[in-house]
Amino acid sequence: MTPSPEPLGDLSRFSINQMTVKQLPMPELVDACLELGVPGVGLWRGPVRSHGLERTAKLVREAGLAVTTLCRGGFLTAADPAGRTEALDDNRRAVDEAATLGTDTLVLVSGGLPAGSRDLHGARERIADALGELGPYAGERGVRLAVEPLHPMYAADRCVVSTLTQALDLAERFPAHQVGVAVDTYHLWWDDRAPAEIARAGAAGRIHTFQLADWTTPLPEGVLNGRGQLGDGSVDLREWRGYVEAAGYTGPVEVELFNDALWARDGREVLAETAARFLEHTA
Amino acid sequence: MTPSPEPLGDLSRFSINQMTVKQLPMPELVDACLELGVPGVGLWRGPVRSHGLERTAKLVREAGLAVTTLCRGGFLTAADPAGRTEALDDNRRAVDEAATLGTDTLVLVSGGLPAGSRDLHGARERIADALGELGPYAGERGVRLAVEPLHPMYAADRCVVSTLTQALDLAERFPAHQVGVAVDTYHLWWDDRAPAEIARAGAAGRIHTFQLADWTTPLPEGVLNGRGQLGDGSVDLREWRGYVEAAGYTGPVEVELFNDALWARDGREVLAETAARFLEHTA
Repeated sequence: MTPSPEPLGDLSRFSINQMTVKQLPMPELVDACLELGVPGVGLWRGPVRSHGLERTAKLVREAGLAVTTLCRGGFLTAADPAGRTEALDDNRRAVDEAATLGTDTLVLVSGGLPAGSRDLHGARERIADALGELGPYAGERGVRLAVEPLHPMYAADRCVVSTLTQALDLAERFPAHQVGVAVDTYHLWWDDRAPAEIARAGAAGRIHTFQLADWTTPLPEGVLNGRGQLGDGSVDLREWRGYVEAAGYTGPVEVELFNDALWARDGREVLAETAARFLEHTA
Repeated sequence: MTPSPEPLGDLSRFSINQMTVKQLPMPELVDACLELGVPGVGLWRGPVRSHGLERTAKLVREAGLAVTTLCRGGFLTAADPAGRTEALDDNRRAVDEAATLGTDTLVLVSGGLPAGSRDLHGARERIADALGELGPYAGERGVRLAVEPLHPMYAADRCVVSTLTQALDLAERFPAHQVGVAVDTYHLWWDDRAPAEIARAGAAGRIHTFQLADWTTPLPEGVLNGRGQLGDGSVDLREWRGYVEAAGYTGPVEVELFNDALWARDGREVLAETAARFLEHTA
């Protein structure tokens, strides 16, 4: 299938997280967005670094693309002073990169348990401590930190923040222009408390990004790269978009899929399909 | 390693779920329990059927082993009348089998979303409807239904009941001698609300079984058979045993591991190791 140059529909709220089509080099990603009428991209630090930070900033700026988020900072759970200092330094760099790219949102994946630790509560408190240092730094640069609750299956090794409740409890210790949350359907769809927490987040102006992925099974080994294309799984995406909009969210809706099968395909085709699915399942 | 006939320590609360050592045929499982001083077993319907229901009941009774649970009933989310009738019939048979085996607890895995459905709430309500029919049937036969919340990673395909809160909300619609909950560390360890919910369950006399498994990563494909041996993972098992005991639970502590690596080993060796780990990590 060749991506159609015809407009697909109203994509004004749509943003493609570049991980969804990571097979596309940065210039081709930008070109494909322009061709399809995709107005926004979520970028990742790795590919930005590969293409060059300033060069990427110039590329997207001249293309008129909005950078809806930068992914990602975080990994703030180290218990040792050296690990903690290193993490804070890296997160300050991530904030700087976000500012250079012109995005107002840095997504944080908080980090898992340090090796040998079983103390989830202590790890969460270290995240709070780190946010206390990073929040003002980010706020001064016009960047908001978005604490992303990850699905509980990642609690040990990637992110001890497993629910929107926990993420908000952390964020609310700080001003909303410094720290808010990321709402991602893949991580939250199972949680019957999440709709009420979305309302709580929206009322506080703390929904800093809204991301979509569908839930498909069986999960692959390591459970990282099995996020489903929109419409292929168990998540009522229209319902979840309704929750964030009822909570006052009017920002971009970013589609972030980690999926080996999608990565094996032509990236432009996947982008066109994703935009079409976005319209079919959320508009 | 040959299992030691020496007593390992105080195993009076320990029970081995037979899935942990599913390589052991029923008579050998019973023999190994007697040799190690393991006083209880959790049984599964499949192996019980293979060995014969009455024959198994006689075997464990004559050995003086307690049957701490029967696993499992459930799968109560079918939306079509035929599927629903079939599920209820099967669960009544499971209750009868539990009564014959002399256990007072039937564990329920509630079931996932029906094919094509995205309605978690509706599926949970159908479980409540089914419990309304099955609870009295079970209660009359001296069997308690234990609704088991499964980890949220199973919400789509195995169990739409993902938290202890949801399980208790279901159970509390019925008398405690009919319906309670299963508390399994593998499924709940990530949830910072679970300790308070354990207290709630205990106060209502609804902790019908307490099961242990550790959380290890990376998760295997399909995420079914990667439950960690006690002490190998991220769960503070002693802390969780403390929660159920503070809630007044004085019953058996069942170890239920689904683990390909353990299944590939000598079953008696795995049983001895599991008993030793139980003492090391929870006593």
